[in-house]
Amino acid sequence: MRKPSRPGAARPESKSRYARGLDVLLSMSQEKMDLVTDRLAEVAPDFARMVVEFAFGDVFARPALDMHARELVAIAVLTARGDAIAPLRAHVSSATKLGLSREQIVEAMMQVSIYSGFPVVINALTACHDLLTTATDPDCAVCPAPGQSTEVGHL
Amino acid sequence: MRKPSRPGAARPESKSRYARGLDVLLSMSQEKMDLVTDRLAEVAPDFARMVVEFAFGDVFARPALDMHARELVAIAVLTARGDAIAPLRAHVSSATKLGLSREQIVEAMMQVSIYSGFPVVINALTACHDLLTTATDPDCAVCPAPGQSTEVGHL
Amino acid sequence: MRKPSRPGAARPESKSRYARGLDVLLSMSQEKMDLVTDRLAEVAPDFARMVVEFAFGDVFARPALDMHARELVAIAVLTARGDAIAPLRAHVSSATKLGLSREQIVEAMMQVSIYSGFPVVINALTACHDLLTTATDPDCAVCPAPGQSTEVGHL
Amino acid sequence: MRKPSRPGAARPESKSRYARGLDVLLSMSQEKMDLVTDRLAEVAPDFARMVVEFAFGDVFARPALDMHARELVAIAVLTARGDAIAPLRAHVSSATKLGLSREQIVEAMMQVSIYSGFPVVINALTACHDLLTTATDPDCAVCPAPGQSTEVGHL
Amino acid sequence: MRKPSRPGAARPESKSRYARGLDVLLSMSQEKMDLVTDRLAEVAPDFARMVVEFAFGDVFARPALDMHARELVAIAVLTARGDAIAPLRAHVSSATKLGLSREQIVEAMMQVSIYSGFPVVINALTACHDLLTTATDPDCAVCPAPGQSTEVGHL
Amino acid sequence: MRKPSRPGAARPESKSRYARGLDVLLSMSQEKMDLVTDRLAEVAPDFARMVVEFAFGDVFARPALDMHARELVAIAVLTARGDAIAPLRAHVSSATKLGLSREQIVEAMMQVSIYSGFPVVINALTACHDLLTTATDPDCAVCPAPGQSTEVGHL
Repeated sequence: MRKPSRPGAARPESKSRYARGLDVLLSMSQEKMDLVTDRLAEVAPDFARMVVEFAFGDVFARPALDMHARELVAIAVLTARGDAIAPLRAHVSSATKLGLSREQIVEAMMQVSIYSGFPVVINALTACHDLLTTATDPDCAVCPAPGQSTEVGHL
Repeated sequence: MRKPSRPGAARPESKSRYARGLDVLLSMSQEKMDLVTDRLAEVAPDFARMVVEFAFGDVFARPALDMHARELVAIAVLTARGDAIAPLRAHVSSATKLGLSREQIVEAMMQVSIYSGFPVVINALTACHDLLTTATDPDCAVCPAPGQSTEVGHL
Repeated sequence: MRKPSRPGAARPESKSRYARGLDVLLSMSQEKMDLVTDRLAEVAPDFARMVVEFAFGDVFARPALDMHARELVAIAVLTARGDAIAPLRAHVSSATKLGLSREQIVEAMMQVSIYSGFPVVINALTACHDLLTTATDPDCAVCPAPGQSTEVGHL
Repeated sequence: MRKPSRPGAARPESKSRYARGLDVLLSMSQEKMDLVTDRLAEVAPDFARMVVEFAFGDVFARPALDMHARELVAIAVLTARGDAIAPLRAHVSSATKLGLSREQIVEAMMQVSIYSGFPVVINALTACHDLLTTATDPDCAVCPAPGQSTEVGHL
Repeated sequence: MRKPSRPGAARPESKSRYARGLDVLLSMSQEKMDLVTDRLAEVAPDFARMVVEFAFGDVFARPALDMHARELVAIAVLTARGDAIAPLRAHVSSATKLGLSREQIVEAMMQVSIYSGFPVVINALTACHDLLTTATDPDCAVCPAPGQSTEVGHL
Repeated sequence: MRKPSRPGAARPESKSRYARGLDVLLSMSQEKMDLVTDRLAEVAPDFARMVVEFAFGDVFARPALDMHARELVAIAVLTARGDAIAPLRAHVSSATKLGLSREQIVEAMMQVSIYSGFPVVINALTACHDLLTTATDPDCAVCPAPGQSTEVGHL
């Protein structure tokens, strides 16, 4: 029987887990990195470090899935959770930056309705209205004006 | 063994699924219909159509449960979810319009505490404070003034 | 502003909460009552008493909703949870005993798919296959033979 | 086999469940007690009474766990829920008042990431930023000014 | 503002929704199709039809995401749910049939630990042990012998 | 503003994260360690290593909470999840080994009913029946005979 891989055996360890995580985060979103290393670190500095090390340095940095697949996984699960709008917006934002089309993102969210029902999907789609449409919505109180940078959540 | 019913066999198909869904929605709430056919449709037009067709044209239109029973089911499950205040408010609103008493709605929410605990029920009851009481609450920042139409969510 | 009702003010207190709860439970299912007062009571006797007192003596005994409505609420929320097959089966069993038709129960479960997706509903429907059909299923390993009493969960 | 304890057998019943619950609530937080006996009681007076009786008069009043352990349990489960920020803030507030250190509270929240992932923990930590740090955050729109009393949720 | 698409406007309607759904299902798994059209249809024939029509005829048949992406979305969300082992196994099975590597599937499950914690991922990985390894496990009571067809769930 | 702690700054790094994690696991349960390093490692060796490193080497090894508090947090959150019986049993087992009384464990589970309802708590208590009582239950099909070692889950 196969034992767990020797610690570190599967990954290039030329960089520390933390530095590798920051690189991944930065490739996704400057604002997101700032949030983790700023506001979260004020309350729980060790946890902020662990998030960078584990989520981005350990998991996201692994080559077995490309970043398009990883963004789809993140967007699907965060849509299904229903209580994670800030990180969902962050991933919608980095997913489009990394080359996924708005149509693909909307499509992945739509598919989540099969497994988790309509309310979480309607909630996700309308909460990301400004990120997923080009038209600005004159009736929308929480939408940023065009050109204004949008709040991006963490993780 | 019984096979799935032949497509469409069980329902009067004189109307399209979409038209039938709009009829059901309109009988529940004009605002709710507008939300689905408006703001949601801007982000995901096909999904807005599917919501009307499936949720209201396929399921709600079936005669095996009357609208009082359907509203109880909707209010109970949305209370239990904890992350679906907007659609919960919409159903509390349409349920009272369709003849359920406030006492019955409060009672159904109270019963949910048996299965899903107190926080989601306290959250649901206070989030629907204005819809479930006649008295206005002078300390409530988010409550509409009397006479002011209340925001109604979707689904 | 209205304060909480004076303790006990709203309910006939001629019977203790526990005795009233047992009466309600017994009207629903003998097996269910035995489970709570037996196996659960062996591990946590005070909790077994609290379940009877609160869930059945306090909540179910209140007259604002009739037992058909209460069973619909229970079945809908337990279907949506996805992890509560035993109590779901118990409520499907007592609901049919109390006069809800199989068609109404199936219909309430179907509606849950709107709010919580298909897997929990498919799971609920197939887990209650024997309770919701008359035909026995020769291929079903877990279904009771006709006439054999079915396992009924608790709560 | 042990039957459920005789009703009331395990607890000193010199005080009513409601009076005992109010005592426990008051030892935790004046604001919290007011919320339950005020805003919640306006919508559902019997339910407000049940919350005091069951959660605080029945469960929290039992001596088998001390209040530090009970606050840890409350904070851990409410962090994991992800949809219960108001009661989570209330418990972080009463936990510090009852003598748990901020470091212990942060640590319990961090541990929840093992079982329920990072987003709910990041959400909990940042939503309690003002309660868990002494430094005020000049960039934080929702944080209270120093000295300003913080909103405390219910349950 | 964009209104919902005209019913049916976005899709080739040369085939009925039901026939299109069966085609998609069959391309994924014969066993899965049988389960929906057989055991589920015995309890709720209209619902069995709706599952085929909506999940596979409406959503999966849309071209905006390819089947690899759709399987990743399904596997990620079902892993995160924690209560949906049967449909998860079905999707792991169809995903490998459609060309995703075992390594990619394991990797997507691992990523879910960031959002939903370790227990659901450990549960998913061990519940799909036989589908994700070639070696048979002599100690495993529930694993099929090599060559024996594995139970595949629904949806 | 405080930045995240420098990587590794807060912890004694004389041992690797993996070795430290194995030490913590072994102090809790031999069976549990075997499960992670055996059956899980066969499907996902890198993930098995990450579980040991992060959950036990990073989080559990931190001194801010003692092991009694950590076990209470684990038992409370896993009870609330409802879908995690195997790891819940493992923690009930290690908690009693580490000195928590059965009464304290039952009490923590009972408190969870406030936040997450009765079904998950009844489920947890009865699923741990053999671990929380000394009496054997002659009617219980899944309980181990006295003296027979009980299956212990992972994490």
